[in-house]
Order: sequence, then structure tokens, then C-alpha cells
Amino acid sequence: MILSYDGADFSGWQVQPDTPTVQGTLASVIGRITGEKVLPQGSGRTDAGVHALAQVVTFVTESSVPTANFLKAINDILPPSIRILEVSEVAADFHARRSAHAKTYRYRLYRASICPPFLARYVWHYPYPLDEDVMDRGAALIAGEHDFTSFAAVDPERGRDDEPVSNVRTVFQSSWRRDGDELLYTVRGSGFLHHMVRNLVGTFILVGRKTLKPADVTRILGERNRSSAGATAPASGLYLDNVEY
Amino acid sequence: MILSYDGADFSGWQVQPDTPTVQGTLASVIGRITGEKVLPQGSGRTDAGVHALAQVVTFVTESSVPTANFLKAINDILPPSIRILEVSEVAADFHARRSAHAKTYRYRLYRASICPPFLARYVWHYPYPLDEDVMDRGAALIAGEHDFTSFAAVDPERGRDDEPVSNVRTVFQSSWRRDGDELLYTVRGSGFLHHMVRNLVGTFILVGRKTLKPADVTRILGERNRSSAGATAPASGLYLDNVEY
Repeated sequence: MILSYDGADFSGWQVQPDTPTVQGTLASVIGRITGEKVLPQGSGRTDAGVHALAQVVTFVTESSVPTANFLKAINDILPPSIRILEVSEVAADFHARRSAHAKTYRYRLYRASICPPFLARYVWHYPYPLDEDVMDRGAALIAGEHDFTSFAAVDPERGRDDEPVSNVRTVFQSSWRRDGDELLYTVRGSGFLHHMVRNLVGTFILVGRKTLKPADVTRILGERNRSSAGATAPASGLYLDNVEY
Repeated sequence: MILSYDGADFSGWQVQPDTPTVQGTLASVIGRITGEKVLPQGSGRTDAGVHALAQVVTFVTESSVPTANFLKAINDILPPSIRILEVSEVAADFHARRSAHAKTYRYRLYRASICPPFLARYVWHYPYPLDEDVMDRGAALIAGEHDFTSFAAVDPERGRDDEPVSNVRTVFQSSWRRDGDELLYTVRGSGFLHHMVRNLVGTFILVGRKTLKPADVTRILGERNRSSAGATAPASGLYLDNVEY
């Protein structure tokens, strides 16, 4: 399934007791339709408040419900803050996370002095001065294969499952561009560490404020130390844009 | 003050005990700044879930805070779902409701089959067939001075204050237009009765579905009977667009 969700309503992707999560909500809705106990698997976890435009999710079912009917059946029961956009049958060896070749995230900064109330859940309101050109120059420096330890939060889930323990990832594209009152960051890579995109954004903000120079981004990468990089940007501006297979 | 708010977070405009309202939230924030007990007056009440792009609100203060400083002071404390857009001093005889010459409301219908989760709070998702041209013809028939009793909810507040008890209002413009996946209704009038715009939208939907003919709108106006008209459309699609003085 490909699904979109408004992360503001959820304590993140991963199922947790007594708190609404996207995975938990989906599991309960699919269970109501198929009568089976299923735990849908996503292409990756998103944190509380992080949005998805096209998260990829699989589940295994022996239900006789035709594949084409699942979309309407699931959307009819889900809250409007989660929408299934597509459903299709895949080979049994397809794995939403391990089969992914690339993921793209987007981050939205709102730059005007007053943030419309209708955008507050969906951007980071940052009306302070920024040199947007040097931010883009700094962003370009993370392209390529690097150890991203400096931009990785300690992940409480690491080691519990089958994720690779290396912090080396390849970034194919990393750039900032203006769109009206918004400054948008797009990053496409082979995979992302916990909080990596939000920590990159927090660091590029320091470049934009002239606290750091663009070249400091390369130095920070080399230091492999989380405390070298900037603060974690708020979840509200972050979107999982798409996943490629 | 001119302010915009996301109505989904509030039980409407009017102050109520133990539930978040726009008026109550503003009163408490202004009280923190001025040390005075104030009840800001709006150009009109909006119901729970109804949004405002440019609500007009006045309050009386003897505070020494310069007018120009109120905007930032209030916005710094308000939740991001309410934003003050402008603050100015007005003559003591200016009254946000009684001085208004015209108000414009907008209603957003989302027409595509799947409503993006980021729009769910801000539109009425109506993916069913509608003849949009006849809806616009029906809408045009309410222009002019009419008794709008058929489109008015019984208002628990009527008679308690100084509102005129007549249900005669003048509509200057009433029309539907397409904008991408949205069908937008705009109505500009001298004033509006309780639930009037939502009841008009619910009636135009019946015209679009061919349950009613456009000319039935004129018949319903003449009957002065709420049960002649359609159901009340959901609050989520309705916006107070602007108020003219």
C-alpha cells in the first residue's frame, strides 16, 4: 500500500500501547476487515509529528477480499488523517524497507513573519534572517557516501531488529530551494539514520545564520560526533516524500 | 485586530467554561499582557470547527502598551492556531459587528475521490457526482434582499443581546466556481443568520444532485420554513473570509 498521513495526530509510525500510532491504527483497521491479526510493515519509522506523502507499507493476508477492494474498505474505516492512495499485490519476497533503493524526504521552513494558522502543523516557522544561498552550498557537501554518525540520534531500536549497524549512507541529492514564503529542503538517499534529516536541517540553519561556514558541514561529517552538529529541527516540517524500489 | 484561526482546534468563537474557544483564548492572552479583564468582541460568532481568514475583533484597554507592540506580544503567547494579522487603534464608537457593512464567507468542497490527510480539517470531502453548473445557477437565486428563515437554525443566543430579530438579509454575491480539485462557494452579504451559509451549501448540494431544481431555491426562500431546505453542511469547509466597514 502507498499511504499519506498527517503526523500531527500520531505518536509516530511504530505501534505503542495506549497511544495513537499510524502502524497501530492500520493494524486495527486491517484486522477489522480481514479478521486476521496483522502488523503492517513500513519502509521505515517516522517520528511523532512527521508526515508522509507516500509511505510504503506491506501486510500479509489470506483474506478473500479482492486486492482492488482493500483501498475503499480501509479508507472507509481509517481516520481522515491517514489515506491509502494505492493498493497492489506484491511478490512474497518484497520487503518495504529492505527492498528500497532510495528514499526522498522534504523539509518545509516557513519564512514570512506571521505563519498562517492553517500551516502551523505542517512547517517549521523560522522567520529569522538566513543566508539561503550558503545553506544550499552547505547542503550540497553531504552528497555522496559518508558516515553520518554526527547527524544520527542514538536509536533505541538499533540492534533489536535486522537493520545494518553501519552509519554509512549514500546521499544522491541534497538541496534547498525557495517556493514563495517557504524554503524547501529535499534530500534523496540510500537510507537515513534516526533523526538524520532533522539534524541536517538544524545544522544547515546554523550555516544560514553564519554560525557555521558551508565547509564546516564536511568537518562535522568527519568528526563522527553527534555533538558537532546542530540541534534537531522540529518534526512538523518533515515529510517522507517517496520511496523507490 | 484582524485575526485568522484554524477552527478545528476550538469549540467555536464564543467564550465557554472548560472548553477552548477563540474568544476565551484571546481574552486570557490579552489579560496576561495588560493585566486587565477584557472580553474581546468579534464581528460575529463562528461555530465549532469553522475557520477565519480575517475575523475582526475589538477590545478596550487602558494599557500603556503601544498599539504597534500588541501584535507581537499577543502572537508570542497565543497558540499557533490563532494568528493576529493586524492591530490598529479605532474610534470608541467603532463596533466590530454593528459597524460592519458586509461579510464574505467561503466554503470549500473537495471533489477528488481521495482527500489528502492535510486537507481533511479544512474542506468538506464530497466526491459524489454533482452538476456544478446548476449549483451555480441555484446559488445566484439568493442574491438580493430576502427573508432567510428557511436557511436559519434556531439560535439559542437570539434575543439575549441586541441583534436585530428580523431574518431579512441582503446577499450581494452568491456563486460557485471550480479551482482544481475544489469547488468553492463564495457568498457576500449584509449579514448572516446562524448556520445560514452551511444550510445554503447543504441545499445547493441537493440541487447539484438533481434532488432539487435551481428554481426550488426561490420556492424554499418563500416558504420561510427551515425544514424545506437541505441539511447543514459540515463546519470544516467554512471560512469567514473578510468583513467590510
